[in-house]
Amino acid sequence: MTSDYINALLKKEVKRTPIWVMRQAGRYLPEYRSTRKKAGDFLSLCKSSELACEVTLQPLERFDLDAAILFSDILTIPDAMGLGLYFLEGEGPRFLKPLSNLSDIERLTKPDVGGKLTYVFDAVSTIKKNLKNTVPLIGFSGSPWTLATYMVEGGSSKSFSKVKALMFQNPHHMNQLLDILADTVIDYLNAQIEAGADSVMIFDTWGGLLNKQCYENFSLRYMAKIVDGLHRNYDGKTIPVTLFTKGGSAWLEKIAASGCDGIGLDWTIELGEAERRVGQQVALQGNLDPSVLYATPEVIVSEVNKVLNQFKGETGHVFNLGHGITPDVNPENMKILVDAVHAYSKTN
Amino acid sequence: MTSDYINALLKKEVKRTPIWVMRQAGRYLPEYRSTRKKAGDFLSLCKSSELACEVTLQPLERFDLDAAILFSDILTIPDAMGLGLYFLEGEGPRFLKPLSNLSDIERLTKPDVGGKLTYVFDAVSTIKKNLKNTVPLIGFSGSPWTLATYMVEGGSSKSFSKVKALMFQNPHHMNQLLDILADTVIDYLNAQIEAGADSVMIFDTWGGLLNKQCYENFSLRYMAKIVDGLHRNYDGKTIPVTLFTKGGSAWLEKIAASGCDGIGLDWTIELGEAERRVGQQVALQGNLDPSVLYATPEVIVSEVNKVLNQFKGETGHVFNLGHGITPDVNPENMKILVDAVHAYSKTN
Repeated sequence: MTSDYINALLKKEVKRTPIWVMRQAGRYLPEYRSTRKKAGDFLSLCKSSELACEVTLQPLERFDLDAAILFSDILTIPDAMGLGLYFLEGEGPRFLKPLSNLSDIERLTKPDVGGKLTYVFDAVSTIKKNLKNTVPLIGFSGSPWTLATYMVEGGSSKSFSKVKALMFQNPHHMNQLLDILADTVIDYLNAQIEAGADSVMIFDTWGGLLNKQCYENFSLRYMAKIVDGLHRNYDGKTIPVTLFTKGGSAWLEKIAASGCDGIGLDWTIELGEAERRVGQQVALQGNLDPSVLYATPEVIVSEVNKVLNQFKGETGHVFNLGHGITPDVNPENMKILVDAVHAYSKTN
Repeated sequence: MTSDYINALLKKEVKRTPIWVMRQAGRYLPEYRSTRKKAGDFLSLCKSSELACEVTLQPLERFDLDAAILFSDILTIPDAMGLGLYFLEGEGPRFLKPLSNLSDIERLTKPDVGGKLTYVFDAVSTIKKNLKNTVPLIGFSGSPWTLATYMVEGGSSKSFSKVKALMFQNPHHMNQLLDILADTVIDYLNAQIEAGADSVMIFDTWGGLLNKQCYENFSLRYMAKIVDGLHRNYDGKTIPVTLFTKGGSAWLEKIAASGCDGIGLDWTIELGEAERRVGQQVALQGNLDPSVLYATPEVIVSEVNKVLNQFKGETGHVFNLGHGITPDVNPENMKILVDAVHAYSKTN
């Protein structure tokens, strides 16, 4: 398999700018909603390797995408640590047993991912088999800091006051928690690579809520530890690693220095500026505002072209949205987006 | 009245670094909760000049603050335009009649702020009288873009999909709406200045959700129009103007070029970096992470000193949090913060 997606991340020659889309398997697709209904609830969908495979492949049947991404949840690791992940309809994730005091953190140990998270690796190998080497498969994990925010807050949060109080007040315990999480993420992503993932991505959804010093000490440091511990060459393949800190565009130089291959960008930075700052060192993924998908075909094509025009290199750009595609987007508009990226690459 | 707050914004000599805190009159104070109970609901509190004055002054009785800020809501203007502002307990603001189609926008006209928003200007003059020239009074408004997000979404939003769809799809209507809002904000802030406000601030809470080009075209452009239309000298006083775009630290140079006197910063940029970039042109306000107020006194003092140490100029810094103080902060910690800022200024 020759893949523009892998080649772009490794800054090798590409035939055209590759594209995949965060949450490309998701609620905006009627066939996803139907599989999810069959599964019963969201977690059952994640835990069935057959159904996770089914939804992972759905967008590839509709659109000319250059990569598949494992369908799973970012909170599988805390669930495997015994926190009891559950979902309330329309309310986001919750934990039955969040980390509510320092002794909860002291008692925490690295789980045996091989035993507890087999369903994830089974999904990876099932998807990999069904992809038949058409496009590469991306594995992923939440970043230690992002996992920790959910584990301490007990779910989604607006002010993140509990986890930030812990960070400012008990940095030692915070670091202990993040260390265990980083070690677990290493095991988790390496097992995904062993099961067939061709590339991995770390989602640091909440790193952008930190100040620069805290970002370096409590988020980036642990992502760099993970980058360092991953299989970067496996089974004859080079496995690229992409880091995505939403709201992290101020710190691109620091992120690039982690040793990652690619950096995911949200739309608040211009791709051209990011390329000037770190494009010599790393590949860049992004960065169209997902809201553009609510506009007409003409506007979508014009906004796609604006992003593509900004990138000057011959390779090193993976087109994506700056955040996940939203549930109420018309799938037709996703097709216009994907085709626009490929059409541009043909004529420019 | 000689004021370090005004002087810092105008880059004149100060005795010590001034401090005020966004939402300093608010739910973290038991006396505020008691006045609010007396008022019945939040809007009645805003609409009573006596009670708005009472809560505005409460934090000044407890803490050694260098400025008072008018107690009001950022959505008074859309309410005056007939959208019907109301609040559901714990749910944030809502409009009875949001702008739900293009003809709603076409029908919109600039309200007579003198008639519809008298309660705000009455509050300003009542507060001004009661302050007895001890500290200056800050007036404020939401930015046109931020007001438009609520008016189109009908309230708070997670994805801002409606207002962004309007922006990408119908930029002409979006600009028409923003133009009317900018003209209204000019009238509104000028009337606050005429009623006694010594300084004004524009809160662009949601400008940071835009990409660079959209930020310039749909948010900053209209704030610059307002800066241009305000009384900058009134009644023998120079009236400084501060712009605060949450999440806008990538665009400081552009914001500084608007002609404002001060820029509000959130905590995701280091104050020293902001000073290097635009500190010659404008004053800077900020930028401690509000979550630091959950930590111990020692940590609060140390984090305050980190911020203060970053600023190298002799004047031009107004200490503040990077966003509003949160409702569950212990008021004792607010006292430690304020005193730490003043203590540092004495010894450094």
